[in-house]
Amino acid sequence: MVRLQPRPNRLFGERVRAFRSRTGLTQEQLGRASGLHRTYIGGVERGERNVSLMNILKLASALRVDAADLVTGLPAP
Amino acid sequence: MVRLQPRPNRLFGERVRAFRSRTGLTQEQLGRASGLHRTYIGGVERGERNVSLMNILKLASALRVDAADLVTGLPAP
Repeated sequence: MVRLQPRPNRLFGERVRAFRSRTGLTQEQLGRASGLHRTYIGGVERGERNVSLMNILKLASALRVDAADLVTGLPAP
Repeated sequence: MVRLQPRPNRLFGERVRAFRSRTGLTQEQLGRASGLHRTYIGGVERGERNVSLMNILKLASALRVDAADLVTGLPAP
């Protein structure tokens, strides 16, 4: 079933993908670097996940950015 | 049972409390403004919650700050 995803999660996922592309990491490599599963990374990038603070921080660390870079300017749901 | 809470959640909770105090809102008022329950707000401020992106954005909006202000510089877990 395809569900409409909340816009902030979509925007967050696009940012993760953009930063990951910039680093040259694959989803699998980002998964290993962050301790998260590659299928979870895929879901995050597609905006299908409402990511928790702990996972935001793991992703930011693996992408070598500040968590602020991943969430700044995102609209409230 | 008292459990040790992960440090990033503690730091996040301290920031929420600091911004809330600055605005002069009670936990109950912040709850109403954000659409979250006051007991949840209390748990967040005590570092007992691993807050999701959607709730981070609701809190930031109700506190009239950017979500980046709530997460910048937090250490990876």
